[in-house]
Amino acid sequence: MNKHPEFLLNKIENPKDLKKLDLKELEQLASEIRTLILEKDAAEGGHLGPDLGIVEATIAYHYVFDAPKDKIIWDVSHQTYPHKMLTGRAYAWLDPDKYEDVTPYSNPDESPYDYYAVGHTSTSVALATGMARARDMMGNHENITALIGDGSLTGGLAFEGFNNAADEKHNLIIVVNDNQMSIDDNVGGVVTALKKLRESNGQAEDNPFTAMGLDYKYVGQGNDIKSMIDAFKAVKDIDHPIVLHINTLKGKGYEPAIENEASHHWVLPFDLKTDKPTVPAPKTPNASTVILDFLKKHIENQENILVINAAIPGVFGLGEIKNNYPKNYKDVGIAEQESVAFAAGAVKEGITPILFENSTFLQRAYDQLSHDVAANDLPVVMIVAGGGITAASKTHLGIFDNTMVANWPNWEYLAPTTLNELKSMLEWAVK
Amino acid sequence: MNKHPEFLLNKIENPKDLKKLDLKELEQLASEIRTLILEKDAAEGGHLGPDLGIVEATIAYHYVFDAPKDKIIWDVSHQTYPHKMLTGRAYAWLDPDKYEDVTPYSNPDESPYDYYAVGHTSTSVALATGMARARDMMGNHENITALIGDGSLTGGLAFEGFNNAADEKHNLIIVVNDNQMSIDDNVGGVVTALKKLRESNGQAEDNPFTAMGLDYKYVGQGNDIKSMIDAFKAVKDIDHPIVLHINTLKGKGYEPAIENEASHHWVLPFDLKTDKPTVPAPKTPNASTVILDFLKKHIENQENILVINAAIPGVFGLGEIKNNYPKNYKDVGIAEQESVAFAAGAVKEGITPILFENSTFLQRAYDQLSHDVAANDLPVVMIVAGGGITAASKTHLGIFDNTMVANWPNWEYLAPTTLNELKSMLEWAVK
Ligand SMILES: Cc1ncc(C[n+]2csc(CCOP(=O)(O)OP(=O)(O)O)c2C)c(N)n1
Ligand SMILES: Cc1ncc(C[n+]2csc(CCOP(=O)(O)OP(=O)(O)O)c2C)c(N)n1
Repeated sequence: MNKHPEFLLNKIENPKDLKKLDLKELEQLASEIRTLILEKDAAEGGHLGPDLGIVEATIAYHYVFDAPKDKIIWDVSHQTYPHKMLTGRAYAWLDPDKYEDVTPYSNPDESPYDYYAVGHTSTSVALATGMARARDMMGNHENITALIGDGSLTGGLAFEGFNNAADEKHNLIIVVNDNQMSIDDNVGGVVTALKKLRESNGQAEDNPFTAMGLDYKYVGQGNDIKSMIDAFKAVKDIDHPIVLHINTLKGKGYEPAIENEASHHWVLPFDLKTDKPTVPAPKTPNASTVILDFLKKHIENQENILVINAAIPGVFGLGEIKNNYPKNYKDVGIAEQESVAFAAGAVKEGITPILFENSTFLQRAYDQLSHDVAANDLPVVMIVAGGGITAASKTHLGIFDNTMVANWPNWEYLAPTTLNELKSMLEWAVK
Repeated sequence: MNKHPEFLLNKIENPKDLKKLDLKELEQLASEIRTLILEKDAAEGGHLGPDLGIVEATIAYHYVFDAPKDKIIWDVSHQTYPHKMLTGRAYAWLDPDKYEDVTPYSNPDESPYDYYAVGHTSTSVALATGMARARDMMGNHENITALIGDGSLTGGLAFEGFNNAADEKHNLIIVVNDNQMSIDDNVGGVVTALKKLRESNGQAEDNPFTAMGLDYKYVGQGNDIKSMIDAFKAVKDIDHPIVLHINTLKGKGYEPAIENEASHHWVLPFDLKTDKPTVPAPKTPNASTVILDFLKKHIENQENILVINAAIPGVFGLGEIKNNYPKNYKDVGIAEQESVAFAAGAVKEGITPILFENSTFLQRAYDQLSHDVAANDLPVVMIVAGGGITAASKTHLGIFDNTMVANWPNWEYLAPTTLNELKSMLEWAVK
């Protein structure tokens, strides 16, 4: 049953309907979309902060552009709830009975407004470069847009995409959605570069985008519908590639999500009044607590343990290591290739790197696991989460790590079945 | 038998011996090293242009730094012939009977001056970030240097390395060896950025390195030993990360290699007087000519065929497509991930991408082959060279593509055994 029959959103069957609204109505729509994101996430869990932050930009995009002729590729596509609501799928938020009818990532089987099944970061610009070039070959002229977050910029594939975007001869719009957060704090030189641009209102001389020959525009108020409409109008039908750098607030509209962005990137079902999870906390000890205890023991023991991960410390509860043992902690960003090569570099110097990876993201680092570690026979210890046969979406399967590793020399693959086994395997691995 | 017992190089057992020489003697050494590279390559084949171009920088490096305590990671390591000659392995160039005794890439089994077995591009900075961080943990202070070419900068892993290099708190020296060539012409925004820096003698405001917070120095005369010694002295023991951008000439000292850099990146045995190969040309028709004929037929037929490759057109003889059908040709740089995502983007728009890859480099794109293509069930056509069991070095094996692909849905893997089979398979694939 539709919980909000009075919502304006009920009248939006597709983006064309949006174009008839005035600014006040668009703002009304933004507020409805936020309510719906929060209500469904509170009930079901899901991505929260990224979607709350992108509401205005999404409304403005669909107000200005003509999807599905004009095409937008959402990086990771974990921020597409507003997009889905505006492209005929609002029922899956309005009606609790239909909560399960729409999938969480972009999905071409679901809608002509979604172009790819994605779920791994940093692919949007690369996909868009291929689309733009193909559009040119066919003599078409639609707008091709990629929207990528500041965190996802730390992935090498994003850079490969930008490098080729700079060679595109016609229209290509790259929106950098800079909410100053990855899942956890964003890291590296990218953070510095974006900061200089924000603080100079886009005027900093040191501009990595224009350095590559890309045109560039900055929007300080990325959560203001009017500013975003103006910005999109200014770049619509542009005849060359351009970077539109927008400053947005992750979690906007829900205080707890702004105060603690990392824990509200993705949430389990929670109470909207207290922000407390409504599902029981995991029993302890569990695999995470066993691993943490193990790490702390060895670090306190003055051993040269370096805990490495690629932008997902929360998956393993590594916050405690990050905060209490910064000397022993490294987050390389959404850079799985770097994480493995970094570990290979570190172990070669004589320390013990322990690399935390998610099975599905690990496939980014196939070449480094095979060459930099296996072919060099280096004793890197890796802890992989999410392996196995699970009910994850098809972009987050954990069934490939095993088959990857099985074909390389020098790797040992252990799968503990009890916490005691886990403990012994960890001790064995660092020896 | 030593062909050049009179060479100064005979007295260099390790880099310490270099430090006793004066500038004139170092220049003499450079000329000897060039002679040896040319003589052995003419007899045996091997990498040519990259090694001829890096002679002075290598001499200067070993003159200024204290290897193997100070460490240098050579990207790809196809430019390490001079390094090998200066670190106790000159015999493998001086004595034709020993030509086979030293391997072509860096090799820790061969020498304490080599730290990794490498052969794929763009890993050096990432490895160096891990080494620098581990050195810091252990309270050591040696200089860690990565040397990477302008072509290898187009690989995403290089960017991931730079992003993390910017976070390094102590010494890290990144030499960007800018000879304005990959194997073929370098591509993308990186080319623009480096050009602006060269043309401004390093003063351009648009500096992608300083944008990320990295220190930066430019050396216009990267083939001048004195300039390189001064530059290395200025950064030795520096207490923070710095990019040393050096301008060098690929093929320096051998005119034909300067005139045609692409065909002299790697050479088959050739006649030093005429520059002509001394091995018989491959019989025609062969797999390459069959594929080329097939491509031309379909392109001439006005079909929307897009020929994509990642920085290795020469492997497939794609020069003719590049020159005669630029509309149908795309080189994405050393960016295998991008090449696959680019093809996925292009096919989605309705054209027929034909992706040319080398088996060993394809493993960089595992995730894109699995997600962007297979999980999206997109009809990308891929032609893979170098697959199978060959006598390649362990960093260039072609045995993994088959096992990778075997585990994904939606891929068909065809292995033609005759040219006629190849023809039919190609026609079937583009339908
Ligand atoms: C290859 C890969 N590694 C890790 C992840 C896990 N992950 C999902 S979203 C995300 C952070 C993205 O940050 P950003 O691009 O800034 O977008 P935001 O959520 O802040 O809008 C990460 C690390 C992933 N999806 N894919
Ligand atoms: C991942 C990967 N892709 C492709 C290659 C093939 N390859 C070897 S060297 C090279 C060009 C490197 O150019 P650059 O870094 O500029 O160095 P240069 O040879 O000009 O000194 C390429 C494409 C490789 N070794 N690894």
